[in-house]
Amino acid sequence: MSYQDTSAEEINIAMQAAQVAFLSYKNISGKQKAKFLAAIAEELEALGGELVTTVMKETNLPEARVINERNRTTGHCRMFATLVEEGSWVDASIDTALPNRMPVPKPDIRKMMRPLGTVVVFGAANFPLAYSTAGGDTISALAAGCPVIVKAHPAHTETSTKVAGAIKTAIKKTGMPSGIFHHVYGTGFEVGQALVKHPLTKAVGFTGSLAGGKALFDLANQRAEPIPVFAEMSSINPVILLPDTLSRNVSKTASLLAGSITLGVGQFCTNPGLIIALEDDATQKFLDALSEEVRKSSPGPMLHQGIADNYINRSNYVREQPGIQVMSESIDTHNPMQGRPWIASVAANVFLNNPSLAEEVFGPFSLVVRCTDRNELHSVVSSLHGQLTCTVIGDAPEVKQYESLLNVLTEKAGRVILNGVPTGVEVCPSMHHGGPFPSTTDSRFSSVGTDAIKRFVRPVAYQNFENALLPDELKNENPLGIWRMVNGELKK
Amino acid sequence: MSYQDTSAEEINIAMQAAQVAFLSYKNISGKQKAKFLAAIAEELEALGGELVTTVMKETNLPEARVINERNRTTGHCRMFATLVEEGSWVDASIDTALPNRMPVPKPDIRKMMRPLGTVVVFGAANFPLAYSTAGGDTISALAAGCPVIVKAHPAHTETSTKVAGAIKTAIKKTGMPSGIFHHVYGTGFEVGQALVKHPLTKAVGFTGSLAGGKALFDLANQRAEPIPVFAEMSSINPVILLPDTLSRNVSKTASLLAGSITLGVGQFCTNPGLIIALEDDATQKFLDALSEEVRKSSPGPMLHQGIADNYINRSNYVREQPGIQVMSESIDTHNPMQGRPWIASVAANVFLNNPSLAEEVFGPFSLVVRCTDRNELHSVVSSLHGQLTCTVIGDAPEVKQYESLLNVLTEKAGRVILNGVPTGVEVCPSMHHGGPFPSTTDSRFSSVGTDAIKRFVRPVAYQNFENALLPDELKNENPLGIWRMVNGELKK
Repeated sequence: MSYQDTSAEEINIAMQAAQVAFLSYKNISGKQKAKFLAAIAEELEALGGELVTTVMKETNLPEARVINERNRTTGHCRMFATLVEEGSWVDASIDTALPNRMPVPKPDIRKMMRPLGTVVVFGAANFPLAYSTAGGDTISALAAGCPVIVKAHPAHTETSTKVAGAIKTAIKKTGMPSGIFHHVYGTGFEVGQALVKHPLTKAVGFTGSLAGGKALFDLANQRAEPIPVFAEMSSINPVILLPDTLSRNVSKTASLLAGSITLGVGQFCTNPGLIIALEDDATQKFLDALSEEVRKSSPGPMLHQGIADNYINRSNYVREQPGIQVMSESIDTHNPMQGRPWIASVAANVFLNNPSLAEEVFGPFSLVVRCTDRNELHSVVSSLHGQLTCTVIGDAPEVKQYESLLNVLTEKAGRVILNGVPTGVEVCPSMHHGGPFPSTTDSRFSSVGTDAIKRFVRPVAYQNFENALLPDELKNENPLGIWRMVNGELKK
Repeated sequence: MSYQDTSAEEINIAMQAAQVAFLSYKNISGKQKAKFLAAIAEELEALGGELVTTVMKETNLPEARVINERNRTTGHCRMFATLVEEGSWVDASIDTALPNRMPVPKPDIRKMMRPLGTVVVFGAANFPLAYSTAGGDTISALAAGCPVIVKAHPAHTETSTKVAGAIKTAIKKTGMPSGIFHHVYGTGFEVGQALVKHPLTKAVGFTGSLAGGKALFDLANQRAEPIPVFAEMSSINPVILLPDTLSRNVSKTASLLAGSITLGVGQFCTNPGLIIALEDDATQKFLDALSEEVRKSSPGPMLHQGIADNYINRSNYVREQPGIQVMSESIDTHNPMQGRPWIASVAANVFLNNPSLAEEVFGPFSLVVRCTDRNELHSVVSSLHGQLTCTVIGDAPEVKQYESLLNVLTEKAGRVILNGVPTGVEVCPSMHHGGPFPSTTDSRFSSVGTDAIKRFVRPVAYQNFENALLPDELKNENPLGIWRMVNGELKK
């Protein structure tokens, strides 16, 4: 089946339809939106094995992973359904009037979150379901009350088309305005550019490469009306090994990290691409153990040829850098579509003088940086760019001794992990998946968890409104029974 | 007294000192920060009449207004002190571990707001105290835990220097790290550019012109690491008069609006620069009454010569546009430093075809747009750019009839007012002072009220931390007694 690029005229028609739909959809109750979001989950489930097979065919992902990801996707549809049905997410705040206040009366002012308008979503190659057509960006934007235009990812167009069909069926079945969702196709840059530049677009969600995300970010800021771009781009997710703890847990740490490095053929945004340790006996033993684990590991098929080629090119680049010592690579045979796990190490002073070594290698690779002392460890951490995650492996008493390091490290990441691995992003209210640039374009917002909805809203204050004219969320009697800040006090 | 431009080297030294200070200041308790912010208020009060006289001399503002603004400034210092002392503002969220969950265990994840880093503040000419050196931007950033570098406004350098002295005294008296506040001077663009471009700057607060704010926004986005700019820039604050209500309240409405147009010589960002009404008898009577009010009003001294010149130039430009009918102007004599109130009217079709008429005229001026029918009223509202505020004058039954107009209007503004005037921005939790572009660069954040603190923070998630290593806000025992979301439930 072939999918033609959507024309500029078709895009404009879709954007106009989305704007018309927005003016009614933004006022639809949380309960109605909840039914719609739950219906998307049901329709995705109704696609059954056919969807799973399509994803497997288009992405080379194994069945268990695809089913798991499908469940994660229906899971976040239901999570946002629960969130908007309950309703407190709008951050309602009420300050009642004080007509006799001197020198001037205080007016009645109330505030709540309202949707921004139409959101354009670019899905991720590595999450064909959970971060694509009905992914976290789309579902959180729809939950917020925004229409969504999804550009199908060229690497899994058929999957995207099936998922889009499920969303359209859910729209029909729950009586939503049909214009709130559009699915467009584009193999080159033109369609994406036209979507981001369209005056009716109010925000952009993107998951992918630094080059792609940054290009959209620049385009959005050059518009007559600049708009926010939430791009999740590039992170090497450093892991710092504290020496005493490492000396007691060499093989455990090696097997923990090898598992994380090779998970999903290294194709996760939270893949640990950098390991930082002191140059000592424990680290030498750890390197030996990690090397052995990587040697035993198997290459796996990558998502598509472009990603596989890029992994080989980036790997070759790193290999050729002065001071790079290849530690080990998987000894299994592999074909050019497969990502072959490997690790290297480098002295900290070399790493510090070659910024290209801090750039992401998307695939099952990690670079171990050997520091001669604590000062150098501090320098390496201070030199890091913004990251989605930073991890420290160390027991509590030793972490206490490295408090100032942890203090600096926290400035580099959106999520700090102790004694775990960065892969495996829990979907829950406390998750924050969004770190300082270049890991994302806006460290203040998360693309995972319920707070992802906050990207697509802005506060609107209502001053001196009669009760009947206010949105339900702000009415005196609190008809929705939501949490609200009333005259400085949080209550239901 | 003369103030030399701060050199690039001095700026770099200040930024480095701010970064060092940040690494300790960010971990200081809310209680300690509260003492510091309250001390700023005390030191400002200790400056007494000398500060008031200096402001009056530099800005031409009358004594009562200056005292009022000083009290507003000490008021927001204490408001943020109360906020950070109580502590719930950090949005703490806790999801505890489920080690036995299938297929994978759920880790313990906790999240709270943490400061971004050093913030550069550009003060406003029209609020020499409340939106300048110790203004809402500075105080909310310090409350968040960010160091602040203020560039003194060239139009009130002496005021700024005195206020900076008060902040520095408060730092000493409460034992804060000295590097958290720096005060720099610059008459041209160079100093501001150097501050925004400096790699250690993490956010910018600005209040001023569209040209100035947009230039800083562009500069910040062109950095290797783009940073957020919160610029409050340009708004004409449209007021829509509904016909039935107007017909019953002609003179009341005219005097209400005349008061708002001429308040503070029209030098408020919420000044009502556009009035939209249907072309009917009531509107004709309203225009007569408003004209009479404006004729009787007095010119007043503007903040500085640049603003006065700009008001004259912009007024002359509007006067010369085809279709503009001058309705009335103040009949008092005035000198070139004084802003002379005047109003004009124009037919909606002319307004719709001349976008320059929708640009801000900073001063005591308003343009009345006459619409032939409801459709044209709808077109004019739809054509509006983003605004800080939009106002509707209409009683509840009539507003109900214009529900679709109100629905569109809400998309244009950060604050919607019924039967009031946009001037007079209440400082309270429910205030939202920040509308769609070009009124601000980021409609999602407010520069007034307690939520202004949200501009200078980002969430950080802590995964699998032992209790003792967590910030107090996230410890199991909730030692600060703050509101937290714990496993999906809001509790103290």
